[in-house]
Amino acid sequence: MESTHHVVIVGAGFGGLEVARHLANTPLRVTVIDSRNHHLFQPLLYQAATALLAPSEIAWPIRSLLSRYGNVTTLLASVVGIDSEKRAVLLDGGSTIAYDTLVLATGARHAYFGHDEWEPIAPGLKAIEDATAIRSRVLDAFERAERTTAPDDHARLLTFVVIGGGPTGVELAGTIAELAHETLRNDFRNIDTRKARVVLVEAGPRLLPGFREGLSEYALRALTRLSVEVWLGHPVTECSADGVTIDGQQLPAMTILWAAGVAASPAAEWLHVPSDRAGRIIVEPDLSVSGHPEIFAIGDTACVKMEDGGLVPGIAPAAKQEGRYVADTIKARLGGKGALPPFRYKNAGSLATIGKRAAVVDFGWIRLKGRLAWWLWGLAHIYFLIGLRHRLSVALSWLWIYLTGQRSARLIIQSEARRPATGSGR
Amino acid sequence: MESTHHVVIVGAGFGGLEVARHLANTPLRVTVIDSRNHHLFQPLLYQAATALLAPSEIAWPIRSLLSRYGNVTTLLASVVGIDSEKRAVLLDGGSTIAYDTLVLATGARHAYFGHDEWEPIAPGLKAIEDATAIRSRVLDAFERAERTTAPDDHARLLTFVVIGGGPTGVELAGTIAELAHETLRNDFRNIDTRKARVVLVEAGPRLLPGFREGLSEYALRALTRLSVEVWLGHPVTECSADGVTIDGQQLPAMTILWAAGVAASPAAEWLHVPSDRAGRIIVEPDLSVSGHPEIFAIGDTACVKMEDGGLVPGIAPAAKQEGRYVADTIKARLGGKGALPPFRYKNAGSLATIGKRAAVVDFGWIRLKGRLAWWLWGLAHIYFLIGLRHRLSVALSWLWIYLTGQRSARLIIQSEARRPATGSGR
Repeated sequence: MESTHHVVIVGAGFGGLEVARHLANTPLRVTVIDSRNHHLFQPLLYQAATALLAPSEIAWPIRSLLSRYGNVTTLLASVVGIDSEKRAVLLDGGSTIAYDTLVLATGARHAYFGHDEWEPIAPGLKAIEDATAIRSRVLDAFERAERTTAPDDHARLLTFVVIGGGPTGVELAGTIAELAHETLRNDFRNIDTRKARVVLVEAGPRLLPGFREGLSEYALRALTRLSVEVWLGHPVTECSADGVTIDGQQLPAMTILWAAGVAASPAAEWLHVPSDRAGRIIVEPDLSVSGHPEIFAIGDTACVKMEDGGLVPGIAPAAKQEGRYVADTIKARLGGKGALPPFRYKNAGSLATIGKRAAVVDFGWIRLKGRLAWWLWGLAHIYFLIGLRHRLSVALSWLWIYLTGQRSARLIIQSEARRPATGSGR
Repeated sequence: MESTHHVVIVGAGFGGLEVARHLANTPLRVTVIDSRNHHLFQPLLYQAATALLAPSEIAWPIRSLLSRYGNVTTLLASVVGIDSEKRAVLLDGGSTIAYDTLVLATGARHAYFGHDEWEPIAPGLKAIEDATAIRSRVLDAFERAERTTAPDDHARLLTFVVIGGGPTGVELAGTIAELAHETLRNDFRNIDTRKARVVLVEAGPRLLPGFREGLSEYALRALTRLSVEVWLGHPVTECSADGVTIDGQQLPAMTILWAAGVAASPAAEWLHVPSDRAGRIIVEPDLSVSGHPEIFAIGDTACVKMEDGGLVPGIAPAAKQEGRYVADTIKARLGGKGALPPFRYKNAGSLATIGKRAAVVDFGWIRLKGRLAWWLWGLAHIYFLIGLRHRLSVALSWLWIYLTGQRSARLIIQSEARRPATGSGR
């Protein structure tokens, strides 16, 4: 019976949500499974990590995003495997969910290129908890420096190393530099926060490798103006609690942040299908998994080749285009309309900001930098936020920071393990 | 030398901050020590616990609140003891801070009346981390109920017990009932959130014991209208992972919240001075600690008798009045002006809300209930928030919830221990 065809979507990121939305109000039964209760607007996650925005300004309960679609169910659960013969998704706790069509939109994790032991030292930025942890770590470094009576420690405590020169690395380094040099300038008595060093390390020859060279050079100049030290062509060979080793050179640093690479979540392992070096499933031209026409992979879970031989980039607009394509394919198949033409990626452009007043925008047909690009970047991101409430809130936060320089989300949230048994405070 | 007289304030709650502010721009050296980096607007903490407000809307970095006062230093550190002979505060990690005058404004903790083993089962609400933990716990209960295939579990999963009928308990119960019956109503497919039971248990004969009886009765009616079951005169005799035992009767419940009592932080133990049953230091009429004229205790740390024999209530306006009095006393002593008249508490009134449209206000000379009280409550709280930024943000949040019923802060934040190693999601 057509009305009981069950589409299971694993992951409620940009790709997964787009599939669900385009299957809404059809006779299909749709279940969205995610291990978190919220969809995350990842392009602004670095702002939550640097106290510019609050976590709730960039995250939405999945359940409430999908509540208006009567045929869509949300399930908060962790997927641990797939039984493709029985067509069932395996959840932790032992239960299973049967599917007729499966969409894998499980996203990416940090990749440490064989150095997983660096993860606790150099945390990456993927989930909302990463953002609050990084925010607490960065703010705590200044607090420790203020408190320490050993001036030798100051340099190490006030050195922030960001590894990776892609958009996330550039945005993190720029906004940490502004935090130190502007926001916190008058807040401390024993340290001069303007003496903090922010070092951005990139193994390749230039920043923003996905952008044109002219924009990379502009980003380098803009970061340098913000006093960020940019080390290009220098691979990190060691991370420890003391700092990083870059090309054999020791750099003592208390705070090390990882923005160097991602790997797909283990969807390819669940299915035992071929994947690329980053663990992404190499999909067919219709985004289905080879040998499994009823399983699709999209977003950071999929390795999708373009006509020019390049790969579709791992950005939100690409995941959304793929999600929409898969929803259309599922509807066409069930409507007996036959296959759609292969998926084609439309270049959605690349954007990155460098601090409060500079940005680079590369849409292919137009490249912008500077203040105009910054305003365009801001408007685009407010536009893509979901819901009027979040747009108003983020616009207010940004306007406030722009006018006053004050970041309102500067909370150090203590994890259970670190909370003192007794102490001062409330 | 007068200019080096060092005032150390432990705790940056309402009382501690008020002392610091009134000693600002004097020749005194002032150090504020707190184990958190933020001042918390505790009267609205229950709203952060129930997804009405985001944590950053009710918390401010202490350092930035005090940065404009050149003679005031902020120190993020935990106090572990006091050496009153050497006049030094002992910090964790072994360092010490010498003082000439010491102000203890360390606030209160939850008190489980000899049942500390209940704390992990029935968390209380004192710090911002408590609010996010309770928020995650409440939202997670609905998620589990939606996921479970055993209908027998539904009743337990969807029963929320709030222990304690003071303002915090009344406010928590009212807003959880609204969450279940209004906000989440359309979000789930397998459960009817309107069937959730919210039970408020109070050992005493009436709600809001600090208010007049007429207002207690009104609060009872308003909660009942929100479908909250109020059990009066029933002490809780047992809390376990299965639920609570009330007067010998078992009530299976997955979520138990503690709003029944507080005890002072261990300041009295640090000093080995007499305290009342709740651990508050019994202070002299000038709020100094007996035998230690250079040490003051204020807010929830102090037991202050009023002229009519009653005790000054443990609310923010009282802590602020005491803080201001202590600052004036310190200035008068150093100015050689002699002692001030004893501290006198001016009744600042009591306020509590019950859900989205009802409140009770008791200023002594005027008592209000219903919608007018609710608006007055809202305006008063917006007024007392620090800074235009927070006022705008909270006003926007409340207006949005009032108009749409949507709570934007509905995030389940996972603690490190609970985060899955692999899984769906981004």
